[in-house]
Amino acid sequence: MSEQPIDACMEKIVSLCKRRGFVFQSSEIYGGFNGFWDYGPYGIALKRAVERQWWLYMVEKRNNVVGLDSSIICHPKVWKASGHVDRFGDIMCDCKQCKTRFRVDQMPDPTTCTNCGSKDLTPPREFNLMMKTYVGPVFDEEHIAYLRAETCQPIFLDFHSIRIATRMQLPFGIAQVGKAFRNEITPRMFTFRSREFSQMEMEFFCADEGSMEWFEYWRQERWNFYLNVLKFPTEKLHLHPHDKLAHYAKAAVDIEYEFPFGWGELEGIHHRGTWDMSQHQQFSEQDLQYLDQTNNTRYLPTVVETSVGLDRMVLAVLCNAYDEDRAPTQKEGMEDDVRVVLHFPATIAPVQVAFLPLSKKLNQNAQDLQAKFLGRYRTELDVTGNIGKRYRRQDEIGTPYCVTFDFDSLEDNAVTVRERDSMAQERIPIDNLRAYLDEKVLD
Amino acid sequence: MSEQPIDACMEKIVSLCKRRGFVFQSSEIYGGFNGFWDYGPYGIALKRAVERQWWLYMVEKRNNVVGLDSSIICHPKVWKASGHVDRFGDIMCDCKQCKTRFRVDQMPDPTTCTNCGSKDLTPPREFNLMMKTYVGPVFDEEHIAYLRAETCQPIFLDFHSIRIATRMQLPFGIAQVGKAFRNEITPRMFTFRSREFSQMEMEFFCADEGSMEWFEYWRQERWNFYLNVLKFPTEKLHLHPHDKLAHYAKAAVDIEYEFPFGWGELEGIHHRGTWDMSQHQQFSEQDLQYLDQTNNTRYLPTVVETSVGLDRMVLAVLCNAYDEDRAPTQKEGMEDDVRVVLHFPATIAPVQVAFLPLSKKLNQNAQDLQAKFLGRYRTELDVTGNIGKRYRRQDEIGTPYCVTFDFDSLEDNAVTVRERDSMAQERIPIDNLRAYLDEKVLD
Repeated sequence: MSEQPIDACMEKIVSLCKRRGFVFQSSEIYGGFNGFWDYGPYGIALKRAVERQWWLYMVEKRNNVVGLDSSIICHPKVWKASGHVDRFGDIMCDCKQCKTRFRVDQMPDPTTCTNCGSKDLTPPREFNLMMKTYVGPVFDEEHIAYLRAETCQPIFLDFHSIRIATRMQLPFGIAQVGKAFRNEITPRMFTFRSREFSQMEMEFFCADEGSMEWFEYWRQERWNFYLNVLKFPTEKLHLHPHDKLAHYAKAAVDIEYEFPFGWGELEGIHHRGTWDMSQHQQFSEQDLQYLDQTNNTRYLPTVVETSVGLDRMVLAVLCNAYDEDRAPTQKEGMEDDVRVVLHFPATIAPVQVAFLPLSKKLNQNAQDLQAKFLGRYRTELDVTGNIGKRYRRQDEIGTPYCVTFDFDSLEDNAVTVRERDSMAQERIPIDNLRAYLDEKVLD
Repeated sequence: MSEQPIDACMEKIVSLCKRRGFVFQSSEIYGGFNGFWDYGPYGIALKRAVERQWWLYMVEKRNNVVGLDSSIICHPKVWKASGHVDRFGDIMCDCKQCKTRFRVDQMPDPTTCTNCGSKDLTPPREFNLMMKTYVGPVFDEEHIAYLRAETCQPIFLDFHSIRIATRMQLPFGIAQVGKAFRNEITPRMFTFRSREFSQMEMEFFCADEGSMEWFEYWRQERWNFYLNVLKFPTEKLHLHPHDKLAHYAKAAVDIEYEFPFGWGELEGIHHRGTWDMSQHQQFSEQDLQYLDQTNNTRYLPTVVETSVGLDRMVLAVLCNAYDEDRAPTQKEGMEDDVRVVLHFPATIAPVQVAFLPLSKKLNQNAQDLQAKFLGRYRTELDVTGNIGKRYRRQDEIGTPYCVTFDFDSLEDNAVTVRERDSMAQERIPIDNLRAYLDEKVLD
């Protein structure tokens, strides 16, 4: 899966992801395809739920941020203006002996091949990470287009169309979620660095004056998201200010998470100044200035960006949720056993409530009960294996509540609700079940 | 926008989409990019809501369909096996005089250029619609990969991984939503035929015996979706059985919608037999048979597919919602006026509830009231212009409920709720507002 050694905990998570259908390699029956991943049933449920939490937090719960969904392929000049066509690459060299290709900045000694030891290397040259395609009837230079390398550029292009349509005035933000592509030489660390990935970005447009306050505001807001929505513990998070800023940037900071393989960037908060708008103004030859009606001044908006990889966020959620503890065993002669459990917050768990009939004779009753909650929560009907085995299976996919329908339920019209983390069981009248679960499961 | 004439009604819809930020051309400041579209704030809210209704209906409300999210780029052999690399194309010819390129099947007389009248045409040749790119460090034939032309192929690849991870047994379905790409020669009819689009597909795997019953079942289920979820009138829908079936297909039917430009395909329901699974079995050299444990037999699953374009569905929703009626005017000396209104069902409206302070002095009160509903409904705070003008604006983006906070509200703790379609107004105590709106707006 990766050339690099991975922590044992990471291996367990990757293995769980495959075993339970969270994430697996693209095109496995064809031997896999390096750098591309598929999300299985529980994985896509989790990914959708995490994305929805971001969208709620960044767009629907605010009056000053609106959404956008731009195409993945846009006018090739966009990537000229952004600098990606000319500068978005890694410096590589090839070993002439064994033909291995290296990123020069990753070689311990840039004159020696780390594979075969040869010193006969090609001169370093740039390798562009943009993926290109052709649009239109002819496949020539004129018809080259690019898969976007980041979701933010179209936001700059559409700023004025959106401003006019919505009558928004500065300061306000535009957010979007979508796929981006980078032809990484060495995709690695599971879904952490892949060639196709989803980004969630928000560009906040404001006047230059006061823009540093907005930078601080968004840094705090995004930090709070990890603590309050995803429930990450503070000690797993880290703010990393950039030592070297891009020439146009006023400030930049990363939010890092402590993955099993070490600290890794989750999100960047960037003060991009007027750089992007001025580049697109120059390349499009359009006036992209904003008319500030209160001061009757015209200026290019300053931009503060929050940029996060959805796949990385989901990976961090998986790593943060993963746990092994001890639980009563099903096996004879042993008191307890190792339990693998994913402690997802209930709002984002792939299955929020599982319905378990205690006996096959009660399958229909459990299914009828489940039917009342379809579409309200993400549910599953789990009918095979003994009840202890089913609890463990639900623990392993992170289901916070298991509702067991037993023979007593036929008499007392109540069910047993088992909570994942404490494993505590509670008898709840069916008439109260919705109110009970609503409070625990809904946003 | 298109070479072809469009009905006046369609022009109005396109114009409304642009004016109100539903949909506009990609890369407008660079002159646009043919065949690519961006969804603005109201457009993406609508698109997300429609997609969510599909996902609820097809996945979350069922026990026999699970989700998948596969990568857009997968192993190139997949498209060899599916036949797309060799056969997915249009037969084209060029005029040697004026250089115009034509689809031969669209030429009234395939020997004459419809542009300049010349009879000097190139021989017809196939033009493949797959978009290609390169993955890896070298841009040569060996590293060609394709942007998927449909979302269904990876479902076939992942069938067994998903089956094993979820312990599902036949019959069951796998659904996914995602982007697909086709290098259309003549993208046209707004978002109806574009080069980048979103599909929502479900492949239902079953035994051959009984598969025609599943075909009938899914045809009915999908028909009901348009009537019951999207609230389309029956007379705007049409079932069109295919006259010519693909050689492997047992049955195929399209659900068509009457767009302003005529009847157009929304969705296909296809009985694909074992064609896809047998192709991938052959090309991957893996045994893709299913072991039926009840009969202890092994066979390739038969597939019934439901396949719809999300962009087309959203376009149909827009066309179906568009209306002009008469409403009391704001202008002196006239009794009423033309009102443009989008009659979206409340579940999918981009803005479900707008909060309007009657006076600027009440802005904070209206905003405080809105704050109670953020994240529960899609809301907007609309503060500028007289109240009649704001109602019209909300009508034009299809907001089903406007909540007006006036000076009386300070006294009676009640608000006026104005319903979009009837324009009826009702006084509702603020304490009852949530229950009142929940019933009307939530799924």
